[in-house]
Amino acid sequence: MESLRVALGERSYPIHLGAGLLGRADLYRPYLGGGSAAIVTNEVVAPLYLSKVKQALQGARVTDVVVPDGERAKSWQTLERVFDALLAARCGRDTLIVALGGGVVGDLAGFAAAVYQRGVPFVQVPTTLLAQVDSSVGGKTAINHARGKNMIGAFHQPRAVISDVATLDTLPDRELRAGLAEVIKHALALDREFVHWLEDHMAELLARERAALVQAVKRCCELKAEVVAADERETGIRALLNFGHTFGHAIEAGTGYGAWLHGEAIAAGMVMAAELSARLGLLEEGGAERVRRLVSGAGLPVVGPALAPEALIELMAVDKKVSQGQLRFVVLEDIGRAALRGAVDERLVRDAIVAAAQ
Amino acid sequence: MESLRVALGERSYPIHLGAGLLGRADLYRPYLGGGSAAIVTNEVVAPLYLSKVKQALQGARVTDVVVPDGERAKSWQTLERVFDALLAARCGRDTLIVALGGGVVGDLAGFAAAVYQRGVPFVQVPTTLLAQVDSSVGGKTAINHARGKNMIGAFHQPRAVISDVATLDTLPDRELRAGLAEVIKHALALDREFVHWLEDHMAELLARERAALVQAVKRCCELKAEVVAADERETGIRALLNFGHTFGHAIEAGTGYGAWLHGEAIAAGMVMAAELSARLGLLEEGGAERVRRLVSGAGLPVVGPALAPEALIELMAVDKKVSQGQLRFVVLEDIGRAALRGAVDERLVRDAIVAAAQ
Repeated sequence: MESLRVALGERSYPIHLGAGLLGRADLYRPYLGGGSAAIVTNEVVAPLYLSKVKQALQGARVTDVVVPDGERAKSWQTLERVFDALLAARCGRDTLIVALGGGVVGDLAGFAAAVYQRGVPFVQVPTTLLAQVDSSVGGKTAINHARGKNMIGAFHQPRAVISDVATLDTLPDRELRAGLAEVIKHALALDREFVHWLEDHMAELLARERAALVQAVKRCCELKAEVVAADERETGIRALLNFGHTFGHAIEAGTGYGAWLHGEAIAAGMVMAAELSARLGLLEEGGAERVRRLVSGAGLPVVGPALAPEALIELMAVDKKVSQGQLRFVVLEDIGRAALRGAVDERLVRDAIVAAAQ
Repeated sequence: MESLRVALGERSYPIHLGAGLLGRADLYRPYLGGGSAAIVTNEVVAPLYLSKVKQALQGARVTDVVVPDGERAKSWQTLERVFDALLAARCGRDTLIVALGGGVVGDLAGFAAAVYQRGVPFVQVPTTLLAQVDSSVGGKTAINHARGKNMIGAFHQPRAVISDVATLDTLPDRELRAGLAEVIKHALALDREFVHWLEDHMAELLARERAALVQAVKRCCELKAEVVAADERETGIRALLNFGHTFGHAIEAGTGYGAWLHGEAIAAGMVMAAELSARLGLLEEGGAERVRRLVSGAGLPVVGPALAPEALIELMAVDKKVSQGQLRFVVLEDIGRAALRGAVDERLVRDAIVAAAQ
């Protein structure tokens, strides 16, 4: 088992990484002070891993809430179901919430933990690559609103993250690739060396070789932990982790949440953002092409959905990354070095969307 | 104008106190960085003060949300209406939310501010005595759930509190008295001298003499600010401010939220808690009687509703002040000195409820 620490003062927490961790009682025990726990998971993950986690929590009073699969579970209605279940089980302020599943379960259960009785402790047990590299680190929790993704949420740090790469064995190919999109994002935004490594090891990752997976997840967590430690509430540098996301969120909203996986939308979004970076005179020649190759090499879409560029731009305008009415983008100054740009000319955005579709 | 400061590190904020403050543009200006604001108020307060506050926000893009009056507004449905309005007005992360109204509006708008786009700034403009002395200080925000009061919420500190005692002129007598219950609570729990002062000045407070009101509100804010600064998230000493609340919440839940005002329930709850303190051998002879006289002198109920003691005890068991299955109470060791007691014998609780009803 490998462990790293997210340094956030009194909110610091460990990330444990390895194969077969999910059933280890010793990893949960430190957080079971109140003697009760509530596992939030979904209908796909429950048959695979719920009983194992329950066994690891033996000795505690355990309840569970099984929510629907997919992005639609990040809803007001599902959140209310979680609260109903917690209250029916008389969960108090010292109940540990265990988020067992992918990013959706983590976001939903994490937000429930953030606001249930004004905040209870929670542990993340991410079972998708996406959640292991991204959504389990940093304390962002949220649900969606009809008018936009992640519109209602909170910053609430987990007490620990237990990342069991053995759970990736049961992950559908499409979701594995979607997770690789976030891996690529970390590399492109923050670490040129890691981009090289990915170009060399993509085949092993796609073949789910555990050593490669552990290494990729670990590097992403290190990179993200560093950024989050420097900027917990995303007022500055943390925004760089949104590379590809302004475009990506618009793709998700424009196609109806769920049609495109988050990672797929971010994949096409990164190609658009790279094209925009080139048009802003930032990214060297061939840079956008290299981004496109890396994305495509992971079996991810490089072309957006059949939506007019104007429709995407309109959707971006309601995204919360808009500041004081201006479109802001995370762009690449170089491969492995992202930067934030405000007041971007809408025509360049349009051109970038068109170029990405070529 | 008098000002005091709640010391919470980077979350510190000022409380401004006086008559006629609500319309002063200079008090809002420091928090209007993004140039947009959303006023959340209710149908009773809106006709009285909304236009004045709007005028004070002149120059900013201002939207408003008018919610129903009363405790029923602290609901999931009303919260969603607030989000809908914020999103329809395209409020971004830098929008200032102004909570204009009593404790319900403050709790609702504060919770909306806590979770809208993972947190936006807000300013409290409390227009009831209850809100001025209590709910506007300390950052507790919440909505209710069918199974319990304040079950869903967050700690989210305001940027500033603007307490205009002139707004108390329009407050119904019953609500003024309910506010006095919280004033009495602060004194009984924390400040023996203040108990004396209240015994001497109750008539002036009931006559709404501004000098007396400013002094009472200020002393409560000072006391609460000190406690909150020492224990922001209520892990210890802050719980003392819940004197009378375990009984009070059970009264509110047992009679259906809204039948009893919060302050009225707390008033009867304080008498029960004083009787319990006497039965635990803590409060000197005559102490419970003195509590009863003070409460009754403010025109507040000293006897609970017509509910069996067992029903109240059952309701307490689901209250979030239960820790690890044990009933915990805030009791009085002396007039002006509260303490926390766990593992209280249910029979003594029952006896206290019966004694309070004599």
